[in-house]
Amino acid sequence: MAEALAGFRPARRTPVEAVPLAAALRRVPAEPVTAPHPLPGFARSTVDGYAVRAADTYGVSEGLPGYLTVTGAVRMGAEPGVTVVPGAAVAMPTGGVLPPGADAVVMIEYTAEAMPGTIEVVRPVAPGEGVVRADEDARAGDIIIPNGRPLRPQDLGMLAAAGVTSVRVHARPLVTIFSTGDEVVPPGTDVLRPGQVRDATAAALAALVADAGGSPVPGGIVPDDPGALEKALRAALPASDVIVISAGSSVGVRDETAAAVARLGPPGIWCHGLAIKPGKPTLLAECDGVPVIGLPGNPRSALVVFRLIGAPVVRLAGGCTVAPPEASTRARLSRDLASATGRLDVVQVKVGAGVATPVFGLSALLSVLTAADGYIIIPEEATGLDAGSEVDVILYA
Amino acid sequence: MAEALAGFRPARRTPVEAVPLAAALRRVPAEPVTAPHPLPGFARSTVDGYAVRAADTYGVSEGLPGYLTVTGAVRMGAEPGVTVVPGAAVAMPTGGVLPPGADAVVMIEYTAEAMPGTIEVVRPVAPGEGVVRADEDARAGDIIIPNGRPLRPQDLGMLAAAGVTSVRVHARPLVTIFSTGDEVVPPGTDVLRPGQVRDATAAALAALVADAGGSPVPGGIVPDDPGALEKALRAALPASDVIVISAGSSVGVRDETAAAVARLGPPGIWCHGLAIKPGKPTLLAECDGVPVIGLPGNPRSALVVFRLIGAPVVRLAGGCTVAPPEASTRARLSRDLASATGRLDVVQVKVGAGVATPVFGLSALLSVLTAADGYIIIPEEATGLDAGSEVDVILYA
Repeated sequence: MAEALAGFRPARRTPVEAVPLAAALRRVPAEPVTAPHPLPGFARSTVDGYAVRAADTYGVSEGLPGYLTVTGAVRMGAEPGVTVVPGAAVAMPTGGVLPPGADAVVMIEYTAEAMPGTIEVVRPVAPGEGVVRADEDARAGDIIIPNGRPLRPQDLGMLAAAGVTSVRVHARPLVTIFSTGDEVVPPGTDVLRPGQVRDATAAALAALVADAGGSPVPGGIVPDDPGALEKALRAALPASDVIVISAGSSVGVRDETAAAVARLGPPGIWCHGLAIKPGKPTLLAECDGVPVIGLPGNPRSALVVFRLIGAPVVRLAGGCTVAPPEASTRARLSRDLASATGRLDVVQVKVGAGVATPVFGLSALLSVLTAADGYIIIPEEATGLDAGSEVDVILYA
Repeated sequence: MAEALAGFRPARRTPVEAVPLAAALRRVPAEPVTAPHPLPGFARSTVDGYAVRAADTYGVSEGLPGYLTVTGAVRMGAEPGVTVVPGAAVAMPTGGVLPPGADAVVMIEYTAEAMPGTIEVVRPVAPGEGVVRADEDARAGDIIIPNGRPLRPQDLGMLAAAGVTSVRVHARPLVTIFSTGDEVVPPGTDVLRPGQVRDATAAALAALVADAGGSPVPGGIVPDDPGALEKALRAALPASDVIVISAGSSVGVRDETAAAVARLGPPGIWCHGLAIKPGKPTLLAECDGVPVIGLPGNPRSALVVFRLIGAPVVRLAGGCTVAPPEASTRARLSRDLASATGRLDVVQVKVGAGVATPVFGLSALLSVLTAADGYIIIPEEATGLDAGSEVDVILYA
């Protein structure tokens, strides 16, 4: 598993497109964004008070206030019409432009009107106090947003502040999702014939693809026929950045899937079989530059593997080099868990009151996943975990 | 802050609408969803092997195999055409329908062809082994998805499996976002006049609203004029589930915003001023049943407060009663942090190698938020945190 995660890194990246700010949340910038001008662009007051020359306030105190003549007032969003001369003060709103001559703003709380047109100041200010510099948020040319990291709400705010209303981002990777199996029918099928099951995996995979920044493309249900699968894969190849196949659980079907993938194009199969439970019969391939991921047929195994192996491939194709953080919590394990060395085990758990309780059930059961709050990973080198041991639960968001 | 979080719980909920499964990720079910039929609906094999009567395998071993006659094979997705009689075995693919008469499936690994038409079995199976029951994933009428919790990828899989292709969910709350201030101009403004700043808050708030499951509605920029603000708020009220105002940082403007909100409708202002830094000048109100949140004028303060106070209000309006988990990490604080008792402090930090390093800067600076990986909360009762103390960093996703 460690090898697969570190080593299966297909080079494909989606092209770059420009999107407006309102559609840019979680999109991945293709290049760093720099500030076109200094921000905020002018020296601003950070408090309500009076713009002054700091030197005029040196040595003042409650017992020995300084007196300054109010020579004007700054209005929000307007150029100050006045220069601060020695002995003068200009009324300032928070966010107003610092007038020429002033180098600090004394907070209104440390002033009082002594007589009309004159204030007393009871606390000295240092130069720069109460002021944000013209380029304190960003200098012109500063990188304000890095590439490779999905845009967060505050990043959009920074871009708006800088007047950047369109961002060059990687296109969402087109991820074609195939389901295979003679027994699989569309979710909309009202009445099932004996032996039929509705396609649960495709809907869940589409959601995981969207979470990874991809755009799911329904590939439909392909019967257990290697010729049909190969044909469907070939047709999807030119319009896909990633292909995902839930490949049937029986050995024969899995082998047929592998054979169809192997014929698709070079370099072909990267690995077939992963030391993970559930999810062993996983296939990783790259065909004509397109990553192809063959998942187990059990919906639950397929989702576990796709979350661990498939989502990073989709993110990478979309230019994301900084994976968003996953929610997790520390908890104590309610019971012993056995595991084979050399195999990574993914165990679904419920979490409450600091205790992680495994949800058991056959890997064919989706209800295990819907009942779980998250999962724990028993690493390859471990032979199990003891009841009471502290575990990291990765939480489903 | 604790009072505000627990006490400001406006009763407004959005109406219910039906959405197709493909558009249901993270939507909030308005009622529990039950399984219309048992799932998977028939007893299925969980392995490749042979359907048998378990009793026929009792006592067999490597040294003393049992012999069974192969009387047929089950095909995927088809009704078994054969009944398993004593002494018989029927070949089974994983996921196939268990034939009548059989009560277990022996894995192919524990069988071998003894002669054409006969297998030997070297390990006994118990009744139910290798089989998932017809209602093991869900019984008809079982709640398969709870209301109030945003739908996760695996929940969509479960709904698809059950044939539920449309879900009744709460409509996304319509959150009208106003910016106020004579100095504020749209982000698309190319050249600023002295004293003007582009509206950074609205873009970032829209993203936080979307993250909380809401639908942001741009209310535009309102000048510092109480009449204009009241008019704009009144016009927005009928079409809003929540109203958010970034309300100007100067004392006069804040008072004018409060006055405009107070005139909007009953019950009116719930609180004005919160013991939080940054974000003290926050206003919470409910007017004619619509929650109204007045945020500080500084973009950074506004975003900090909206994340803590506003997002939960939006989620609640959208029927979400189970907040999705937030990503967080434990880290050691790089330096002492002072805090006043009785005030909740939100400190932006960078995280690396297990160390949380505060990013300092005036609350007017957005760059502090874009540089941060997350934030820590110094609770009301604390007077500060010592360097080296372990803190929970809530990570920006």
